[in-house]
Amino acid sequence: MAIRIGILGYGNLGKGVESAIRQNPDMELAAVFTRRDPKSLSVPTKDAQVLPADELEGRKGEVDVLILCGGSATDLPKQTPQYAAMYNVVDSFDTHAKIPGHFAAVDAQAKRGGKVSVISCGWDPGMFSLNRLYASVVLPEGQDYTFWGKGVSQGHSDAIRRICGVKDARQYTVPVPEAVEAVKSGAAPQLSTRQKHTRECFVVAQEGADLARIEQEIKAMPNYFADYDTTVHFITEEELARDHSGLPHGGCVIRTGRTGMDLEHGHVVEYRLNLDSNPEFTGAVLVAYARAAYRMNQEGMSGCKTVFDIAPSYLSHKSGEELRGSLL
Amino acid sequence: MAIRIGILGYGNLGKGVESAIRQNPDMELAAVFTRRDPKSLSVPTKDAQVLPADELEGRKGEVDVLILCGGSATDLPKQTPQYAAMYNVVDSFDTHAKIPGHFAAVDAQAKRGGKVSVISCGWDPGMFSLNRLYASVVLPEGQDYTFWGKGVSQGHSDAIRRICGVKDARQYTVPVPEAVEAVKSGAAPQLSTRQKHTRECFVVAQEGADLARIEQEIKAMPNYFADYDTTVHFITEEELARDHSGLPHGGCVIRTGRTGMDLEHGHVVEYRLNLDSNPEFTGAVLVAYARAAYRMNQEGMSGCKTVFDIAPSYLSHKSGEELRGSLL
Repeated sequence: MAIRIGILGYGNLGKGVESAIRQNPDMELAAVFTRRDPKSLSVPTKDAQVLPADELEGRKGEVDVLILCGGSATDLPKQTPQYAAMYNVVDSFDTHAKIPGHFAAVDAQAKRGGKVSVISCGWDPGMFSLNRLYASVVLPEGQDYTFWGKGVSQGHSDAIRRICGVKDARQYTVPVPEAVEAVKSGAAPQLSTRQKHTRECFVVAQEGADLARIEQEIKAMPNYFADYDTTVHFITEEELARDHSGLPHGGCVIRTGRTGMDLEHGHVVEYRLNLDSNPEFTGAVLVAYARAAYRMNQEGMSGCKTVFDIAPSYLSHKSGEELRGSLL
Repeated sequence: MAIRIGILGYGNLGKGVESAIRQNPDMELAAVFTRRDPKSLSVPTKDAQVLPADELEGRKGEVDVLILCGGSATDLPKQTPQYAAMYNVVDSFDTHAKIPGHFAAVDAQAKRGGKVSVISCGWDPGMFSLNRLYASVVLPEGQDYTFWGKGVSQGHSDAIRRICGVKDARQYTVPVPEAVEAVKSGAAPQLSTRQKHTRECFVVAQEGADLARIEQEIKAMPNYFADYDTTVHFITEEELARDHSGLPHGGCVIRTGRTGMDLEHGHVVEYRLNLDSNPEFTGAVLVAYARAAYRMNQEGMSGCKTVFDIAPSYLSHKSGEELRGSLL
């Protein structure tokens, strides 16, 4: 019998989860839960129910794992603890400073309900975190570097859209090639924020808007842009739709370190992602961890987990014997 | 109290394990066990005992994890099952076709003794296997590629040394750059053995040996060289010592795959190692998994495990809270 998945929140990430489920024959999309009017949603998976979010309380028997596809800023801090006692849940919570509090809140509920929760899943946090951990335990004397991009940052794009006179915008985070090369050389450079990434903005301005003022406001925005070399391009709505409608992303985690009695040998460990669709790849990670959550709960486990706490074999539908035979 | 490590076999790998232990303050090298005369060994770790291998039976109280540093061909198939009931053990068994039998033999002994064994640890099998698994569960519709090198293959170097008239030799496995680029482009090429790697040999011939015959014998050797484009360079003993005394290696695992309702989005996941010292990096992986074996056994687990069965958090001396705070 297939693992029955529920999705809460049907934006880009929810749709990415839906398409990932189709690629995993041991899983099925049982229901999409939404805070919008269910009738307004067009869900390609024909057998999936589309239900209002407030029906989640009564659907425990119909869903094995609930994948929470809301935002980290306001949705997940409420939703994940709220449903962790009712369902095995998986989320992509990525507000780093708030992970300890989120973990504690979710853990208490998951244990209360005897369910497994997996938080902070995706590629960063997620696959990148795993690679930081594996590389750091093998090379304890070394340095970690994470570069993001080239890719669309939705948070930065939103920040530009809030500026008066801006109709639409798309922001790309771009790693500085010279910085990546310096890291890979093993030189272990100290890199400032500005030295690691640049920011490239494509902005559609409202008619008659003061372009110079918009550009200045973007470049001066604290946290988002002020610490970076930022380029602003004004383009038309048509150009934005034609050239910047995708959500590509990626990046790399690099650890360099030394071994030997006199630390005479250098090593470089690099993990790199190049993704055409950030939400679809993230959704695919969430689905693999949904399988793990289900299987761990079937074995009697409960509580909040992260990617660090989950043996890789739980992610695969293959048996240990098959995994050893095909991938070891 | 530190985790007390024993090493069986004090060649390149055993020495790599020794230097890795020095980089992990929660571990100490308790003893080196050898089949040679213990007096003939010079072990830099002053507090470590150097003992004959046949004393292993009587040293159970002095060693928490025994790391087996013998060869896969003849040593490990005997040694790992032999000691798996007495000690938590870790090995780097890499004869792929024989892993199922090795796993079964080790598992039975480990369960009998209530100990944890970790087999087939290192970078391939090991870190590369993990990356094959993680990438395949996230991108179920895709293709895996593993490239090795540029690096020294000890098995191929040994094969050349067995040819009549050869005094010494070093063989490098080299990935074909065009093949790697074709894979990274997402084109999912079908690649033959010859298209993926070339082999480069540096040979010191005995005085008066027939160089043309040696070159021909190398290039025609089945399994080792016949399926590859092979280059043979004859050099002097001094040149070999000067330019080819290291044991660098590395390579990459690449998975490309597609997602989306119409598989419209492509993704590339790449894991790459660039290692100055193959045995030291492998030793460092074995040491991290020795920590995991010890901790899992402390929690009451037993039996044979591979990297697939071990939650990443067991590899680190840090607490779950510290890991979430620093690496997630």
